[in-house]
Amino acid sequence: MRTRLFIVGLLLTMSANSQILYHDASAFPLLGKATDATLTRYERLPDSLEHISRKPLWDLGRNSAGLALRFRSNSTCIAAKWEVRNNMSMNHMTPTGIKGLDLYCLQDGKWVFAGSGRPQGKTNEATMVKNMVPEEREYLLYLSLYDGVTSLAIGVDSLSMIEQPAVDLPVRKKPVVFYGTSILQGGCASRPGMAHTNILERWLNRECINLGFSGNALLDLEIAEVLASVDASMFILDFLPNATVEQMKERAEKFYSIVRAKHPDTPILFVEDPIFPHSRFDKKVAQEVKHKNETIAAIFQSLKKQGDKNIYFLSSKDIIGHDGEATVDGVHFTDLGFMRYAEILYPLIKKHIR
Amino acid sequence: MRTRLFIVGLLLTMSANSQILYHDASAFPLLGKATDATLTRYERLPDSLEHISRKPLWDLGRNSAGLALRFRSNSTCIAAKWEVRNNMSMNHMTPTGIKGLDLYCLQDGKWVFAGSGRPQGKTNEATMVKNMVPEEREYLLYLSLYDGVTSLAIGVDSLSMIEQPAVDLPVRKKPVVFYGTSILQGGCASRPGMAHTNILERWLNRECINLGFSGNALLDLEIAEVLASVDASMFILDFLPNATVEQMKERAEKFYSIVRAKHPDTPILFVEDPIFPHSRFDKKVAQEVKHKNETIAAIFQSLKKQGDKNIYFLSSKDIIGHDGEATVDGVHFTDLGFMRYAEILYPLIKKHIR
Repeated sequence: MRTRLFIVGLLLTMSANSQILYHDASAFPLLGKATDATLTRYERLPDSLEHISRKPLWDLGRNSAGLALRFRSNSTCIAAKWEVRNNMSMNHMTPTGIKGLDLYCLQDGKWVFAGSGRPQGKTNEATMVKNMVPEEREYLLYLSLYDGVTSLAIGVDSLSMIEQPAVDLPVRKKPVVFYGTSILQGGCASRPGMAHTNILERWLNRECINLGFSGNALLDLEIAEVLASVDASMFILDFLPNATVEQMKERAEKFYSIVRAKHPDTPILFVEDPIFPHSRFDKKVAQEVKHKNETIAAIFQSLKKQGDKNIYFLSSKDIIGHDGEATVDGVHFTDLGFMRYAEILYPLIKKHIR
Repeated sequence: MRTRLFIVGLLLTMSANSQILYHDASAFPLLGKATDATLTRYERLPDSLEHISRKPLWDLGRNSAGLALRFRSNSTCIAAKWEVRNNMSMNHMTPTGIKGLDLYCLQDGKWVFAGSGRPQGKTNEATMVKNMVPEEREYLLYLSLYDGVTSLAIGVDSLSMIEQPAVDLPVRKKPVVFYGTSILQGGCASRPGMAHTNILERWLNRECINLGFSGNALLDLEIAEVLASVDASMFILDFLPNATVEQMKERAEKFYSIVRAKHPDTPILFVEDPIFPHSRFDKKVAQEVKHKNETIAAIFQSLKKQGDKNIYFLSSKDIIGHDGEATVDGVHFTDLGFMRYAEILYPLIKKHIR
């Protein structure tokens, strides 16, 4: 025990005196992209859509929601320098969630939170974890949810190593692909790792791709093509909070069939509109939710009748609990809401993916 | 059903056309203060401490953490205008939690989230809920956690009523009094209602008093006098994340005995330092937490040996779960952390309060 304390003391002294050396992150694997054909590395939509997609949709595609860097290091601390595109702010989400970073470490096969990168503004520098015993570890670093990372460097002790991951976890073959709204994009997780697609990526130990576009999950058909381009294990269609009843009637089947055409047997899950907590009181919202959910149920039943066996439907009844406490504003999920949603989705996805 | 829809439609049309009229909140009961002898209404420390307490402690006492307004209205919408003292920002907490408002409504004896007031800056205006059926309801409005509300007006439909509560809920007799740190003050709840003292106030339906002072729960003895001035049902002493081992050795027994002298039989609960998620990796923090928890355990045992029967000790082992996901930065609780902490504290407090 005394020896162990002495060693820990020695290591802490060493780390206090060591310098941090930054390494460009472009050398390390990046999870969470539907395609590599993007304008810059840390964005989500193919460059071919730059002049095709509606501008707000295209701009949101440049946010780095769901993207995650993998590396391995024996450093006693992990730091980062990063720059963001818009220096975005919102009054119902933390800057750490909007434009920060979030570090996880693999321990006994599970991803464990190690520290978050709290941002200062457009250019940022943060030590996410320090005072560690210098053992080799596998890291997973989640990027900003509501802004776009334009450059990223990882800092480690100057005398330590940083290198390629030694294991392919989360597994990159056959990712799970999500399409949806601001909630899907991670609004309003306190830090990037708490968006439910990122929670599920860790729990499933399978790459997840977040195609969430705040306010803009309007069933744009070119996004269906992006989904269809991925050799996915499952597709989750979670667009109801944005798409209107008219848009659904006009495009939901078409959107679906673009994906289905390329993936005849892949499970596709439709998700109902959440019963937003404020709709207990706001009768207008309650009516809208009811109308949307009736519409998606009818569309689902119609597809089912056409003989599709690999489509599923998630009722929103239980997805964020029944206490009304899972959102920041009646709509956008907090970490509590995302945790509950992940707990509902996990067994459903686990059961269907191969 | 058709009639009901017609009525709802009519009411929505009415509310869309009605004007909002603002009423100064000073006419309505305010919960969460240890004393009414404060410089201005929406702050927590007695004015007598203005030139006695350390300046950072005094300044934090002017934050409105745990304060909540009670009123009754039949309006179809509830809005607010409010101004804050510092226009505070932090990168790991939402502006809504820092300087926003949070509205709950009593339904079947339970407090249910109705909507949050998202801030714009120093002066703010927000509609927290709208499109309601115009029934008389009891409301509880939580004030900003990390800033001080300096003025507050409640907006209702111009032709509706706003008046004194019809029921004394949460019960104001014998409140529960909490002393502690930034975490206790509500860092980093997404909205004011999710600080654990506010969650517990709703679950217990008993007034709770939040004497949390970010970074400044250093066992200042005049704060023990503030606690002792309250005819409390229980005291929760939750200062470990701030107080050093030296401060605890020097002042914890003295702090305790000031409270105990005036309340010989009131339950007093000591809370251990949380096992912060980042301390899995940060060995320096892990050692500090261990040392502090050993110190408080020794102090508790010593008090116990002196014959006190009404003191209790909460191990931090389970308070925020074991998945490492309950904080935004390894230290400060998110809504997920506060919910878990409230779930642990609730039965303990419920059992002891009269």
